[in-house]
Amino acid sequence: MSSPVVLINVFSVPQGSEEQFIKVWTEALELMKNEPGFIDAKLHRSIDKDARFQFINVAHWESAEAWKNAFSKPQLKAVGSQALFEQNPALYKVEVET
Amino acid sequence: MSSPVVLINVFSVPQGSEEQFIKVWTEALELMKNEPGFIDAKLHRSIDKDARFQFINVAHWESAEAWKNAFSKPQLKAVGSQALFEQNPALYKVEVET
Repeated sequence: MSSPVVLINVFSVPQGSEEQFIKVWTEALELMKNEPGFIDAKLHRSIDKDARFQFINVAHWESAEAWKNAFSKPQLKAVGSQALFEQNPALYKVEVET
Repeated sequence: MSSPVVLINVFSVPQGSEEQFIKVWTEALELMKNEPGFIDAKLHRSIDKDARFQFINVAHWESAEAWKNAFSKPQLKAVGSQALFEQNPALYKVEVET
């Protein structure tokens, strides 16, 4: 029985490349949105330009398999292997919430 | 005019210290919950134990000032200066969402 997962991707983007990063990420979002099992995504941008991680995506997928299937496809795989920025994608579950 | 912000804290916790981390974080949550301007918090735990960041807190505060005031208080400041784990707290706004 698969259950929803949270995909959080923590990005470190060189200063000056922020707009280019947003462009690449938004293009990837257009592809992700059409993938089976995609629920929603929110790209967060740090208020402080000097933050360690300037962008963090918090997205919800119906299952880990749905996310893995989507990112095994060539187009999204290419986004995943971008050298423009450091990324740390991983799947999460909520442990504690208020 | 202040507006809501997203506090995202990205934690790297040594393997074997996960339960202790959850205990410390949950105690801090009990303090945070009573602070003016606190809205909600979700502590996410990575499904893969080898993820770069095993825990990520995504919380909402009514303003940046409210968050800074809360974490300038001794008790929460102490949590912030824990040596048990690496943390990267920063304030964010949503840039793109679906």
